[in-house]
Amino acid sequence: MSRIILFTGGARSGKSALAEARTLGLGSPAVYIATAQAFDDEMAARIAAHQARRGPDWRTHAEPLALAQALDTTDGAPRLVDCLTLWLSNLLLAETPWEPALDALLDALARQRAPVVLVTNEVGLGIVPDNALARAFRDAAGIVNQRVAAAADEVTFAVAGLPMRVK
Amino acid sequence: MSRIILFTGGARSGKSALAEARTLGLGSPAVYIATAQAFDDEMAARIAAHQARRGPDWRTHAEPLALAQALDTTDGAPRLVDCLTLWLSNLLLAETPWEPALDALLDALARQRAPVVLVTNEVGLGIVPDNALARAFRDAAGIVNQRVAAAADEVTFAVAGLPMRVK
Amino acid sequence: MSRIILFTGGARSGKSALAEARTLGLGSPAVYIATAQAFDDEMAARIAAHQARRGPDWRTHAEPLALAQALDTTDGAPRLVDCLTLWLSNLLLAETPWEPALDALLDALARQRAPVVLVTNEVGLGIVPDNALARAFRDAAGIVNQRVAAAADEVTFAVAGLPMRVK
Repeated sequence: MSRIILFTGGARSGKSALAEARTLGLGSPAVYIATAQAFDDEMAARIAAHQARRGPDWRTHAEPLALAQALDTTDGAPRLVDCLTLWLSNLLLAETPWEPALDALLDALARQRAPVVLVTNEVGLGIVPDNALARAFRDAAGIVNQRVAAAADEVTFAVAGLPMRVK
Repeated sequence: MSRIILFTGGARSGKSALAEARTLGLGSPAVYIATAQAFDDEMAARIAAHQARRGPDWRTHAEPLALAQALDTTDGAPRLVDCLTLWLSNLLLAETPWEPALDALLDALARQRAPVVLVTNEVGLGIVPDNALARAFRDAAGIVNQRVAAAADEVTFAVAGLPMRVK
Repeated sequence: MSRIILFTGGARSGKSALAEARTLGLGSPAVYIATAQAFDDEMAARIAAHQARRGPDWRTHAEPLALAQALDTTDGAPRLVDCLTLWLSNLLLAETPWEPALDALLDALARQRAPVVLVTNEVGLGIVPDNALARAFRDAAGIVNQRVAAAADEVTFAVAGLPMRVK
């Protein structure tokens, strides 16, 4: 019986660290499914900092786009997907329709045997962005969050590194 | 005895859907008091999507500015006001002072016999906006939220489509 | 035995008013450690409005940068530090390294005999900012919040003027 667990929160809210601890609590070695792509030095530094925090209990599986296949390939150990917001951003940059990709992710989540922990970002609690692309992105991110949260067994909102259980 | 219920949250946090379900739980047909104005195609599409989700259990009452009167006119059935942030934006665009309008709204809420559910947005959890108008807007929006929340019997913060009860 | 209490939330979420009430509940007169600097009229107006709300139960101690020393100097009465986000901003403007300053603050908090209430801001729940400085600021603000929250005995997230207890 699979178990779907979602951690959401703002930037630097501690959601990844909470999600990593939760994943290792489900068994190790665990698989870290990284959606980040190092397009520039800032992003590369962020990825390196995340990797440095994780220890030998992790195997890393980099997958910017095909999350459903990444889950099917790695089933058997607990997985941590970090994060859905970058995945959405990657889909949009690749001009891949995100709604079918979200459907495929939800289908894949439903058929996993081992647990999956997912990290996502809250991006809709600031002032309405000036440009239409940013507005479309935050709308899509909100829908991704809602649909994954609806499918999840547990949902936690991270604030200042602390967990608030939502579901 | 009236009952004042507030749903707040970010963009696409599922607050409107939660508020609609809560309103229909109070009785139907209910009145949907829409503050949205279709200034452009994006806004028109958003309004249409919201209307498509609502069924025959709703009567729609469009009122961008005079919320107090809209409440007095429709008293007798449960009302859903969606949303206070757009209403504030409409007031500012119309160069109507928002503080007396907020006082009038709170007076009207206090005299309603049938329940009122209100939706609002959290807009103050991002980086401080560059322009003074956006800063003034988020300050005003925060005060609207605080005063309506203080008058409310129930307040719920929506995250990823899920309710967190605050009051 | 000291007691460290943190209030976080968005702009105009009511966190300062909640923190003031909590501080006075610990004893009075209390010391208000103000990190705000009046660089312009908007900021001066905001400071004046905050001061007008506070009564004779408060002594004000203005300190934009040296929070650790301000705490050591004022130990003996309950202190309210408002706020850490402005303090971080002041450090960056003064080109003072923020990480050693944060370490010094945490050391000072650990040695206080009288309680300290701190206010901070959530700034990471909007769209990723366009400019690198704003991104660096929100990363640093998130780390400040996480580390102070980890050291705190109580953490409260303010939404629409209402407290949500996180820790």
